[in-house]
Amino acid sequence: MRISELSRRSGVPITTIKHYLREGLLPPGRPTAATQADYGDSHLRRLRLIRALIGIRGLSISATRDVLSAVSEHEADTHQVLGLVLGARPVTPTDSDESEEAEDRPGVADADALLSEMGWDVSPHAPAKQIVAETLETLRSLGLDYDWRSLLPYAALAQRTATLDLDQLDDAADTVERAERAVLLTLLLEPALLALRRLAQEDESAKRYGG
Amino acid sequence: MRISELSRRSGVPITTIKHYLREGLLPPGRPTAATQADYGDSHLRRLRLIRALIGIRGLSISATRDVLSAVSEHEADTHQVLGLVLGARPVTPTDSDESEEAEDRPGVADADALLSEMGWDVSPHAPAKQIVAETLETLRSLGLDYDWRSLLPYAALAQRTATLDLDQLDDAADTVERAERAVLLTLLLEPALLALRRLAQEDESAKRYGG
Repeated sequence: MRISELSRRSGVPITTIKHYLREGLLPPGRPTAATQADYGDSHLRRLRLIRALIGIRGLSISATRDVLSAVSEHEADTHQVLGLVLGARPVTPTDSDESEEAEDRPGVADADALLSEMGWDVSPHAPAKQIVAETLETLRSLGLDYDWRSLLPYAALAQRTATLDLDQLDDAADTVERAERAVLLTLLLEPALLALRRLAQEDESAKRYGG
Repeated sequence: MRISELSRRSGVPITTIKHYLREGLLPPGRPTAATQADYGDSHLRRLRLIRALIGIRGLSISATRDVLSAVSEHEADTHQVLGLVLGARPVTPTDSDESEEAEDRPGVADADALLSEMGWDVSPHAPAKQIVAETLETLRSLGLDYDWRSLLPYAALAQRTATLDLDQLDDAADTVERAERAVLLTLLLEPALLALRRLAQEDESAKRYGG
């Protein structure tokens, strides 16, 4: 397809596509004339992944280049690719001093206890683990009687949510499309999932306390 | 108790408590001397709710005053109070023109269809409903085959999450303490619930695609 069709099918403006080509995010098309090139479905899928990483995950051009290069390197390993595009695993190996410092947070041992109880196989330096640790620290600092065991029923529901999420990647055409869809569904659904909880709370409150 | 003990038990500095007293957020204590007053457990609970509204929900002093005044007016109605402190229902009646405009969003009809299918009893202008509507619009604009029915299994899990949430309010001493706990647990758990989903996704990905 020509660049105009690539733009139409991806929803990405031609000037933006040219910018991604110049920055090396998108590989060049097959030249068909001095100023024309032909693009295939793999360009379309790659372009959609770029749009997801920049427009939805909010990465910079250079961070996107790093992620895409790591994705290309591990393209046969879907698990690695999903971890890379979602930021669950670092694109470059974490500096060991830095990671030791992170392990020192008081809540991390609690987060580890939770992960171990759930039997979850996750990267030891997953940013999400630090967030669980921080939350447990905050709740404790406010004097709430709350520990990692209190989060277990929520973790069980998160596991069912993740199953729904991953089910939606099954019919993707290839790893790149699967990666794009994982970014979109994970990030775009986040505010909606919290909103559904708020709405369900309101309904549950009406049932328990309503007149 | 004296103000120093109120400060110690609430974790709120004395100067901040004095500021809340001057601003009328916290009712004065019972005077015991020219410069001393006695505070009770109701002051402690009210102070904790103020801290939750300002420090966790991020309300201004004046917005907090409005919420507290509405809470006092409806103190016998736990469902109303929870809606007020969580922002599910407006402190002042919504302007009808504005609400009509909000109803015009294309995703709102879809959000309503979802709420109706779930049988949820929620305020028609709940901010969370707008977020669901926006998400559905965004997913559609990106060309994803996604409608409100796709959110139904997530809504069912949100209902179970909300049951867990509300269960934790049962043993509160009174409506004010219940309101404070609802704010803390709803808002502080939000990043942790999203983080648990990310961790569960990583585990699910390892199970499906891992080597």
